[in-house]
Amino acid sequence: MKEDDCWLFKPAAVLHDAARGASETRQNNLIKPPGSLGRLEELAVRLSTMQDTAKPTVDHACIYVFVGDHGIIAEGVSAFPQSITGEMVKNFVRGGAAISVLAEQLHIKLTVINLGIVDDSECPPDVINLQLGPGTENFSQKPAMRVDQLSRALDAGRQVAIQTKKNNSNLFIGGEMGIGNTTSATALGCTLLNVAAEQLTGPGTGLDAQGVARKGRVIERALQLHAQTIESPIEALRCVGGFEIAALVGSYIQCAQMGLAVLIDGFICSVAALIACRLCSGASDWFIYSHQSAEPGHALVLKALNAKPLLNLGMCLGEGSGAATAFPLLRLACALHNNMATFTETGMPERSP
Amino acid sequence: MKEDDCWLFKPAAVLHDAARGASETRQNNLIKPPGSLGRLEELAVRLSTMQDTAKPTVDHACIYVFVGDHGIIAEGVSAFPQSITGEMVKNFVRGGAAISVLAEQLHIKLTVINLGIVDDSECPPDVINLQLGPGTENFSQKPAMRVDQLSRALDAGRQVAIQTKKNNSNLFIGGEMGIGNTTSATALGCTLLNVAAEQLTGPGTGLDAQGVARKGRVIERALQLHAQTIESPIEALRCVGGFEIAALVGSYIQCAQMGLAVLIDGFICSVAALIACRLCSGASDWFIYSHQSAEPGHALVLKALNAKPLLNLGMCLGEGSGAATAFPLLRLACALHNNMATFTETGMPERSP
Repeated sequence: MKEDDCWLFKPAAVLHDAARGASETRQNNLIKPPGSLGRLEELAVRLSTMQDTAKPTVDHACIYVFVGDHGIIAEGVSAFPQSITGEMVKNFVRGGAAISVLAEQLHIKLTVINLGIVDDSECPPDVINLQLGPGTENFSQKPAMRVDQLSRALDAGRQVAIQTKKNNSNLFIGGEMGIGNTTSATALGCTLLNVAAEQLTGPGTGLDAQGVARKGRVIERALQLHAQTIESPIEALRCVGGFEIAALVGSYIQCAQMGLAVLIDGFICSVAALIACRLCSGASDWFIYSHQSAEPGHALVLKALNAKPLLNLGMCLGEGSGAATAFPLLRLACALHNNMATFTETGMPERSP
Repeated sequence: MKEDDCWLFKPAAVLHDAARGASETRQNNLIKPPGSLGRLEELAVRLSTMQDTAKPTVDHACIYVFVGDHGIIAEGVSAFPQSITGEMVKNFVRGGAAISVLAEQLHIKLTVINLGIVDDSECPPDVINLQLGPGTENFSQKPAMRVDQLSRALDAGRQVAIQTKKNNSNLFIGGEMGIGNTTSATALGCTLLNVAAEQLTGPGTGLDAQGVARKGRVIERALQLHAQTIESPIEALRCVGGFEIAALVGSYIQCAQMGLAVLIDGFICSVAALIACRLCSGASDWFIYSHQSAEPGHALVLKALNAKPLLNLGMCLGEGSGAATAFPLLRLACALHNNMATFTETGMPERSP
């Protein structure tokens, strides 16, 4: 890794514990039985401690979708052809993709960042086009990326997060797109959790059982090839990761260091979150887990993160779609916390005498 | 029961199976791996079959909160004093209650209907005030209500549902409020599911273990008192039910008969849904279950309904709050289904060649 990447290892910002007390006092004074709003109460209080206020808000959320292609696709690990990645970049900005529809419905700005697709000649002007290379290398044969590419991908995420904070965003949502990227995320997960490929490998966008078995063998072989070099999370990211996954890691770490709440999407984003937590101490304080993916490996990754996601709807699309779907829960949690009347205001008794 | 109540037993409307095909075709053509939006896909297709269209919508939802007091409160079965019911009626219209905040956030009209509270002299003018009596009787000593009160409560729900359909609503959300009504709902649940009180009794708004045990004994005793009469769901509703629970049953049945989708809230609403299903064949086709309550008895009721709720956030407030919290999932499911681009439109390949 490069010296420039030392920022990754700085600890996360410290939560505002003073705000927790004021927030809990307010929450417990709302006109309802204590605890009866369940996890919406926890959510509001957690956001309070992140935002240093008794009245938190997610009114300025933002969604960034990071895109990259994957050389590993040559090993036949995906149900979809690689050309889909570039096509989806166009669909994101045209408004036809799932995350585009969700962002519009939720009135959240969606920004798309191309980190490196096979052919960026048709990349729409609305996309931030960084093109670090024509996708990653086939990591079953060589490292997925060079040191400088990894640095630039991490930094791309970092810069996005910094810009977000400058724009006064109060919630960061990251998403990803890249045909083949569950293979990359699974390889990373195996390394980080020290489990065999067959334990973590799933169908991704829709492989059959035979396809899943092949994908598992490709991952196992790649992990053997890179065994000497992937002992650190950062080297694992370089050898078997993806541009968009590295950008997610960079954005998550920068958000945690600045003290900006992050809503984590599904399997691939959770793997990025796990890397962020391994590099940056305290990062997990800033992460809220949106949903449990149908991708079977997600359960193990969530367990390692000690994460209890808000939704479990069998989604596995990526793009940030699970996080966007969970977003209204945060908005409603804040509204209830901030706008409900209190026992004090109404003079109502809190308990039977 | 009265002859007037025969409408309850008419079967539910039949789902529009023709719309299912068109809806599934559209859903499977959206630019994503098939199934990757999980239960949001099922939701959209179910709403299609309810609304007879390939492009369903919940843009005209409505929330009705039914309120009633419970004589059983005299047995010390609630953590809150009975006066709270009347106070909450005021808070619903003043905007300080949880459901008021949620309705405002979701831009859904909230209507409050008083079926019968102890003292309705301060009932705000914005409330539909039917006052069938000063709360129900103490059902550990006598039937909770008279035959005519039950008929009027059921009809109140029916009239609301009819009005809703006239207003072109496309989703009905019912909520309830009434100190003591988990005791009533639990007694109903025991009768309907043929289980002992201790299996179903929970803390409601916050009883301690001793309180739960006492509540269970009160219910057990009441079930023995009414054992001869409560063999039919309708008689159970009269003997141990509540005005607001009966109104929910009436509204759910009328919605099902008219073919209007219903989003069911938590424990008490699910018990009302169970009664509706026992009376009106096919009613369950029209019910969508929003959330699993923290009230422990809810799991058994949901199982009897073969229901898989969308959320499990440990909520147990009532008022329709769980349904309102789940509502954005329906809205997003429709938006994704209706607004995403299709493979046909984009000319993208659906699979690897």
